[in-house]
Amino acid sequence: MASNRIRVTVWNEFRHEKKNAFIRQIYPDGMHKAIQSALAKNDDLSVRTATLDEPEHGLTDDVLNQTDVLIWWGHVAHAEVQDAIVDKVQKRILEGMGLIVLHSGHFSKIFRRMLGTNCSLKWREAGEKERLWVVEPSHPIAQGLGEYFELPHEEMYGERFDVPTPDKVVFISWFEGGEVFRSGCCWERGFGRIFYFRPGHETHPTYFDPHVQQVIKNAVRWAAPAFYGTHPCPNAKPLEEIRSVDTAKTKAGVLQ
Amino acid sequence: MASNRIRVTVWNEFRHEKKNAFIRQIYPDGMHKAIQSALAKNDDLSVRTATLDEPEHGLTDDVLNQTDVLIWWGHVAHAEVQDAIVDKVQKRILEGMGLIVLHSGHFSKIFRRMLGTNCSLKWREAGEKERLWVVEPSHPIAQGLGEYFELPHEEMYGERFDVPTPDKVVFISWFEGGEVFRSGCCWERGFGRIFYFRPGHETHPTYFDPHVQQVIKNAVRWAAPAFYGTHPCPNAKPLEEIRSVDTAKTKAGVLQ
Amino acid sequence: MASNRIRVTVWNEFRHEKKNAFIRQIYPDGMHKAIQSALAKNDDLSVRTATLDEPEHGLTDDVLNQTDVLIWWGHVAHAEVQDAIVDKVQKRILEGMGLIVLHSGHFSKIFRRMLGTNCSLKWREAGEKERLWVVEPSHPIAQGLGEYFELPHEEMYGERFDVPTPDKVVFISWFEGGEVFRSGCCWERGFGRIFYFRPGHETHPTYFDPHVQQVIKNAVRWAAPAFYGTHPCPNAKPLEEIRSVDTAKTKAGVLQ
Amino acid sequence: MASNRIRVTVWNEFRHEKKNAFIRQIYPDGMHKAIQSALAKNDDLSVRTATLDEPEHGLTDDVLNQTDVLIWWGHVAHAEVQDAIVDKVQKRILEGMGLIVLHSGHFSKIFRRMLGTNCSLKWREAGEKERLWVVEPSHPIAQGLGEYFELPHEEMYGERFDVPTPDKVVFISWFEGGEVFRSGCCWERGFGRIFYFRPGHETHPTYFDPHVQQVIKNAVRWAAPAFYGTHPCPNAKPLEEIRSVDTAKTKAGVLQ
Repeated sequence: MASNRIRVTVWNEFRHEKKNAFIRQIYPDGMHKAIQSALAKNDDLSVRTATLDEPEHGLTDDVLNQTDVLIWWGHVAHAEVQDAIVDKVQKRILEGMGLIVLHSGHFSKIFRRMLGTNCSLKWREAGEKERLWVVEPSHPIAQGLGEYFELPHEEMYGERFDVPTPDKVVFISWFEGGEVFRSGCCWERGFGRIFYFRPGHETHPTYFDPHVQQVIKNAVRWAAPAFYGTHPCPNAKPLEEIRSVDTAKTKAGVLQ
Repeated sequence: MASNRIRVTVWNEFRHEKKNAFIRQIYPDGMHKAIQSALAKNDDLSVRTATLDEPEHGLTDDVLNQTDVLIWWGHVAHAEVQDAIVDKVQKRILEGMGLIVLHSGHFSKIFRRMLGTNCSLKWREAGEKERLWVVEPSHPIAQGLGEYFELPHEEMYGERFDVPTPDKVVFISWFEGGEVFRSGCCWERGFGRIFYFRPGHETHPTYFDPHVQQVIKNAVRWAAPAFYGTHPCPNAKPLEEIRSVDTAKTKAGVLQ
Repeated sequence: MASNRIRVTVWNEFRHEKKNAFIRQIYPDGMHKAIQSALAKNDDLSVRTATLDEPEHGLTDDVLNQTDVLIWWGHVAHAEVQDAIVDKVQKRILEGMGLIVLHSGHFSKIFRRMLGTNCSLKWREAGEKERLWVVEPSHPIAQGLGEYFELPHEEMYGERFDVPTPDKVVFISWFEGGEVFRSGCCWERGFGRIFYFRPGHETHPTYFDPHVQQVIKNAVRWAAPAFYGTHPCPNAKPLEEIRSVDTAKTKAGVLQ
Repeated sequence: MASNRIRVTVWNEFRHEKKNAFIRQIYPDGMHKAIQSALAKNDDLSVRTATLDEPEHGLTDDVLNQTDVLIWWGHVAHAEVQDAIVDKVQKRILEGMGLIVLHSGHFSKIFRRMLGTNCSLKWREAGEKERLWVVEPSHPIAQGLGEYFELPHEEMYGERFDVPTPDKVVFISWFEGGEVFRSGCCWERGFGRIFYFRPGHETHPTYFDPHVQQVIKNAVRWAAPAFYGTHPCPNAKPLEEIRSVDTAKTKAGVLQ
């Protein structure tokens, strides 16, 4: 039944794929389409895409209000994302929508907005081997992966990753060149869940990797909200009788 | 020795005290001056003040660069704080400066910026009794306070307080009217420490209370950085030989 | 289908109900039976009970191996629980079984074993009013409860509650006599989830309260494992060639 | 002034050094003496040692009561440590004493007692290279270390490390053979701080390494308590008038 499906929107900057022939060979329709195809095989997921150059970046009120989990890939055009859209996405996350940030999305406006930090890290594009170790085998995002999985060629991201201490670190990466990285990190903000997943450099076919697809699928299910709510700031009536009258204030006739 | 002192800047919106005679009677020179006086009694602290209506809100580059801990009180004029100043304060916190947010500062731009959430809560101005329970007796911010302390008349703040789960909740408040609140909350962002302390409504002489002064003094010492650092994003040379050459990519002559 | 049900075992010390006529009037068959009846109304739960005076306290290997979530109530006879049984329960929790500890179970051997702390607190039996505030409205354990719920008469538990900082505090209690308490606390240990829920003094009909029953039902579903696993300590073969031979050690002919 | 010094006790199982000539060549007086010598160079530290085969394992009431930070190394004789001593050490930690657990101490009774988990991990004795990355540069335990440090030959420990999610992970290790490990982990239990530090296999001169010595020194200062306290469970008088009399209970004449 469609109404029970988790509604996923895969957002992609979609610039590398248009401008670079090598990257286009890997992702002819863009990374968002590769991720959409992988997710759409699951009956419990209903998946659409949105990209930077669509009106409102494809994230209209309508789309956002019908999105349970938003996946975000960006890199060279973070600055082009309008602040007004970031405001809306933030509000929707605080109300319950899940957010999955991929790879170079660590520097996106929305990720930094949600976390409050710089989100910087070390990097190297050497196409080296990455091995992702499962640190939390019982976590929903780790299901079906075994003790570790490998990507033959990836960009390196190394610590110090400047983020608030995650609630859970699900994966830690080992890189051939000698670095480590907290590659799968969970946070909660407001009523929304946030997952950062490291792999996915545009020059490697990472989003076709079955382990990577498994992680993203698991993360979508983990981040999907069972609860939506708002954040009012109400003037509350007392539930108990208040007997500590502030006579000084009363005498002065102070009105609030 | 002056150079070893913790350099504190007490920032106050300073509007209520100017406009309201009853409040001015309590804080003739503004809440910032009351807090400064209390802190300045400690030889290890060097305390200045800054207010909204000064140029750059009193937070010039010079002042920020010489501030180890920034204390923040705001209420009716949050929106008047310039975003460019908030950017600078955020950067300085991520580099190590401590931030102590007081009472209605929960809705300040800088607090919401650092935490990423709405920071909403319930409230009631009935001048009721508040009792703050020490939940973490061994925490530096709890030293010298005993099991609890009371404020005879305060504004009520009630849960749900929409903030990221604190690293530590040092105080939980009991209110006469029936609510509870996480009144002393610790977080870390970047290299900086953040403390939120609930009490301090402008119509009560809260900042003259010796327990409240003790908490702020403790919090200043806790938030003072031993370490300052920046958040670069360097391209890192490999520390180990990389043998997993991505031949597809090499053949295509891809340049990063 | 029975095999998909969450298998719950409600463990009760079952002493007060036998010895005290007033308590027996409230819980003629014991608190475990009241809790079992409430939970058994849910089709997804399969609920049995076990008590201290049964052989192996009713927690045979068979029972434990068929328990997904164990609920624990104890008070006057914590010391009579055999360490060998506690060992088995701990092992099962680390492998994935959920544990829900109720009220005076805070001093049970199993709770202290899992948390490593003393688990002490303040208390008072005055039959006062307790109001439990929902601090995490989006948490699975808070579903269906609204902003708060009240118990007209309960024993008071007050802070400092000596437990490791919970991953999440779902409820904070306000007590009429002036105290507060973290009344709903979540932790993870090994692959198992642990929830502490404060209410349930034997002289009050607390486990007949619909809100309390809702919390326990929610907690069972939250604590039920999707994953079971063991904790081996394997000697691991290298995944990469090791070239840093320790010649000093090799020469000495050291055997591991 | 001696009375202001942090009083450190370095506890060592001290068996390998006696039985194995190769190990004795590295640590002629035992690992505890090497650690003591390194720490004793610091004027703010007063350092003694204790070993398994001394009466009460060298941990008499007197010694424990005069220890602010206890360092623990054990491996082949964990089972020989008496439970009664473990009880006393646990009590002292909960009252404020710091605990630093080294390397194979992960399977010690005291570490498992404090954490409640199995503390298992992967291991390999291949004398491979270990690189420890500083994940929290602003943490007191990371001071003076730079971005990473290396040990030319160490035993490998690999994830999954079965411990409760640490409050802070200060170091993550990269191993030549392809694994990663959370090598510097912080927790708090009761009023005490606990630090686990991975390196220190008995067949390598690890405790002579200046970076390792720096970490242990930093950890001692971090774990030293500013506060000692006990964990009573008092019957508390109400602070507010209780008006919700439980008439049913009163009528029945129930006494608590």
